[in-house]
Amino acid sequence: MISFSAIILTALRRYSPSGNEQVRMLSTHTPSQLHDMIQGIIPPLGSSLHKGQAGRLAVIGGCQEYTGAPYFAAITALKVGADLSHVFCTANASPVIKGYSPELIVHPALDGNNAVEDISQWLPRLHSLVVGPGLGREKKNLDAVAEIIVKAKEQNLPIIVDADGLYLITTNPSLISGYKNAILTPNVAEFSRLYDKLVGEKVDEDEPVTCLLKLCNKMGNLTIVKKGRTDIISDGENVMVCSEPGSPRRCGGQGDLLSGSMGVFYFWAQHRYNMQGDKNLMHHYGPAMSAAYAACILIRECGRLAFARNGRTMTASDLLPEVHPAFENLFH
Amino acid sequence: MISFSAIILTALRRYSPSGNEQVRMLSTHTPSQLHDMIQGIIPPLGSSLHKGQAGRLAVIGGCQEYTGAPYFAAITALKVGADLSHVFCTANASPVIKGYSPELIVHPALDGNNAVEDISQWLPRLHSLVVGPGLGREKKNLDAVAEIIVKAKEQNLPIIVDADGLYLITTNPSLISGYKNAILTPNVAEFSRLYDKLVGEKVDEDEPVTCLLKLCNKMGNLTIVKKGRTDIISDGENVMVCSEPGSPRRCGGQGDLLSGSMGVFYFWAQHRYNMQGDKNLMHHYGPAMSAAYAACILIRECGRLAFARNGRTMTASDLLPEVHPAFENLFH
Repeated sequence: MISFSAIILTALRRYSPSGNEQVRMLSTHTPSQLHDMIQGIIPPLGSSLHKGQAGRLAVIGGCQEYTGAPYFAAITALKVGADLSHVFCTANASPVIKGYSPELIVHPALDGNNAVEDISQWLPRLHSLVVGPGLGREKKNLDAVAEIIVKAKEQNLPIIVDADGLYLITTNPSLISGYKNAILTPNVAEFSRLYDKLVGEKVDEDEPVTCLLKLCNKMGNLTIVKKGRTDIISDGENVMVCSEPGSPRRCGGQGDLLSGSMGVFYFWAQHRYNMQGDKNLMHHYGPAMSAAYAACILIRECGRLAFARNGRTMTASDLLPEVHPAFENLFH
Repeated sequence: MISFSAIILTALRRYSPSGNEQVRMLSTHTPSQLHDMIQGIIPPLGSSLHKGQAGRLAVIGGCQEYTGAPYFAAITALKVGADLSHVFCTANASPVIKGYSPELIVHPALDGNNAVEDISQWLPRLHSLVVGPGLGREKKNLDAVAEIIVKAKEQNLPIIVDADGLYLITTNPSLISGYKNAILTPNVAEFSRLYDKLVGEKVDEDEPVTCLLKLCNKMGNLTIVKKGRTDIISDGENVMVCSEPGSPRRCGGQGDLLSGSMGVFYFWAQHRYNMQGDKNLMHHYGPAMSAAYAACILIRECGRLAFARNGRTMTASDLLPEVHPAFENLFH
């Protein structure tokens, strides 16, 4: 079911950076092994669970211009299986985001005078954080988010960084570099800016895996998902390639569904990782890469189904009703 | 159709608090007898009815952070059969809640300077009150709600207390203790806090019925629904256990559907109670327990149907379209 790009595998084989012998080949694991690993992340549902146990997630983002992005991320988290989904946004974005869905808990806290304190007090109750969807680039808000990231790191909270969260990271890479519980999800443009800043050269389009490994290494072996025609996932050591069929539409919002779902999978993967013995495949890739891969195949399958149903008119909202059939198709 | 937990019945049989010989066994009534009792609560629909006769309910709750909860409670009341459903919330929550549905009457009164007067003037026109969904913990608002509860008690209005309404009750139990027309609907965490405060010891997880009876007794034989894998309902004397299949998802909002529906059933049950002779089964359990049981089986059936349709992607909104089929399945 999972096919791998021959071009990228070739690139992988060519990769031999000076002295780094630890690059393990993706081809050591079959698609069905990877699939079983993802299946193992998904927690069983049972009547003995309490509200919140399947995940309490928060999205930090949402400002005057951008209200859709945090909605897409937060509602997808809920649809994928989180029990509670918060959004921390600016005051003027809050009523709009609330209006999209009564299921989200929306806090107009991001541009308040006590933003850091107001938002940070929720961190102990959260299982993962998605930073960036619809965040905007207002300096005051970004400064607050930087402080919140520092506090989230102190609590070892899983953090997904996307969109304008990546802009923040590009201006201040030390904020997240080397933090083992983070995943960055740059698209081509965001990847280029990060790469320019950290590696100090232009991305070599013919060597996507090599470039990704370089950037991961420069950032202290952080997990990065380089989104594109194929999604390439690496922690600077292992590499996974996700080239499941998706949608040929590139309309806005799909990245937000990816980051929201990844936040849930990341919490689940960490939980599973802590429970399992050393021999499981997830101990090879770690929870960050496993969660990234799970989210990539799920949202690609949603895209494929949504495009099949809606064709060219497909927009990000059309992916939401496909989460259930996509789950059914991919997992049991 | 209704199955009873052997464990809980065992616990019931073991229960013999000092001097209290009045605990009657649930097993004295068959599931089909209980079902017939609930069936008898539901008022027949007929063309001679006037608007409002089937129920005028109000939810007190809804604040800056929480707008979904009062919506879910109020819309469910309407779906279950109330004719008019009001929400009394804070000024900034009001337009958002209005936006969820044109069917609710939403009053931005909860944080106004005349909150108590503005809201209390509606009480004579209401048939039941649901206090707590999305209420928040702002002291000024809670103080107003406390005064409104006092006024509602003077009018013998049925009151369901849930969520942050239970927080208010935990801080000031005398507000509701001994009031015969109240139902509290705590989840596991809320039950623990109430129990700690009133019984002065930790909940014994192996003796849920004993603990529930103790708490009911401490609160003047108030009716309490201890929500969980099985819902246990008691007034300190009788006990009912609802273990109908529901949904294994524990996403937020489901408790709000329960409290909203319970508000309607409570009005109906009281009405029926006053009409019936002493020999009816409802005179054994009383309207509060009967209404609680009706709401529990209805929302569990909604959850079962919504989960069957939506699987893991099920969220609270998915239960709303299931109220009709659930009613059809359970009652005729």
